[in-house]
Amino acid sequence: MVLVSPRNPLNIGAVARAMANFGFAHLFVVAPHEPHWREARSAVGAETLLERALVAPSLAVAVAAGTLVIGTGTLAYRKPEQAVVALPDLAPLVQRELARGGRVSLVFGPEKHGLTRNDLALCHLLVEIPTHPQQPSMNLGQAVAVCLYELSTGLAAGCSARTEAPLHLSTAAETEVEATARAASARLELLAEIVEETMAASHDAPAAMSAANRHDLRLLLRRLALTDRDVRRILGLFRRILWRLRHEQSRQEEK
Amino acid sequence: MVLVSPRNPLNIGAVARAMANFGFAHLFVVAPHEPHWREARSAVGAETLLERALVAPSLAVAVAAGTLVIGTGTLAYRKPEQAVVALPDLAPLVQRELARGGRVSLVFGPEKHGLTRNDLALCHLLVEIPTHPQQPSMNLGQAVAVCLYELSTGLAAGCSARTEAPLHLSTAAETEVEATARAASARLELLAEIVEETMAASHDAPAAMSAANRHDLRLLLRRLALTDRDVRRILGLFRRILWRLRHEQSRQEEK
Repeated sequence: MVLVSPRNPLNIGAVARAMANFGFAHLFVVAPHEPHWREARSAVGAETLLERALVAPSLAVAVAAGTLVIGTGTLAYRKPEQAVVALPDLAPLVQRELARGGRVSLVFGPEKHGLTRNDLALCHLLVEIPTHPQQPSMNLGQAVAVCLYELSTGLAAGCSARTEAPLHLSTAAETEVEATARAASARLELLAEIVEETMAASHDAPAAMSAANRHDLRLLLRRLALTDRDVRRILGLFRRILWRLRHEQSRQEEK
Repeated sequence: MVLVSPRNPLNIGAVARAMANFGFAHLFVVAPHEPHWREARSAVGAETLLERALVAPSLAVAVAAGTLVIGTGTLAYRKPEQAVVALPDLAPLVQRELARGGRVSLVFGPEKHGLTRNDLALCHLLVEIPTHPQQPSMNLGQAVAVCLYELSTGLAAGCSARTEAPLHLSTAAETEVEATARAASARLELLAEIVEETMAASHDAPAAMSAANRHDLRLLLRRLALTDRDVRRILGLFRRILWRLRHEQSRQEEK
């Protein structure tokens, strides 16, 4: 479970309570507001898992080990850029990822505005709680409780999905990697960086990639559902290209 | 939805939020602490359904029209006296009750100690949220959110139960009344009163029934899953017995 910049100490306490209620132990908190975080941690009756929570400077660090990063939040006000799964259908996907040795991160945004576009670029898929159109936005502590209830119930029931619809994260690529775990988020970030570097080098200009392109690249890399071996292979390829590009450049400069 | 004596205005607000999130509109509040209730109702951003909430002096009044009254709360610390249903299996029961014209009341107790034994005597069944044994007790707002999420999802999905276990409220009696709605809570209370009166009269002593017997009688009447017609018939029977008993008494006194 990852909480991005929570504001209200009562909400942090409520999140920890729900985690304890449904048997989840590992909490990451990204860039919390220090006084509020301290207050939540030292509250009377605070859950012990708050003491053991890890504080990360960015979401990328918090989900570095995650092979399936799931973003949450209402989609009423935005157009999603990746696959969206209804909460009642989430447990089988999580089950499958865990079964093949993956690690799942469930990410909740700050109370006011939820996850930003940059945060969402780090997510493989989004989960939507089916709420009423007139009041779609949920209180943070309640949203966490509902998600963890659904996951713990679904995982306990051996994941018989409630709807009969086939569940696909990303069609073709997904079926091929059925047996092997996906690459961890940190590996994908490394890949994104080297691709970016290569593109900058190939344009013969040191200008960085535009923010929009960087965003699309991140989403693309997650849509591909790459395994660790895939990432290693592609990294090798790009390293060679990059070396060649730089080699060419220095030779030209020598002339 | 019925809230019995909620204390914390933030919790009342959270309950209203969850109701709005999942499309539930009718809230009864039993004997609320006045200042807290006023505060919750007038809070900035309070849900409009709080304005329309009905305040009842007792739980019996709040559930008077209910034909299926469902109590909530952790069962870790008490031995239940009626049927217990796990939350993932609740929606089909509610669906069936609504389909035959019944009215369902979902009752939540105060934050500190939950529903009392007397409150529970008014419930046809209890629902249990499957929580972790080490932290079974949930925050009120979160418990409400989880229950309403499960009900709204389950009712929307046409109630395909997640577990394959057969669902029975009360075996034999239940199958017979499949098609007709059960008697409302207020009718059962009326019946309990006349039975009590009759027993007092038949013992030739005006002493009231003991509290334990009254409690068991209430539970028994709910276990029987009586229809309105059953109640009318039994009421008629007891009225005749009562009349006869009193008639005999006055004749004896005349001698």
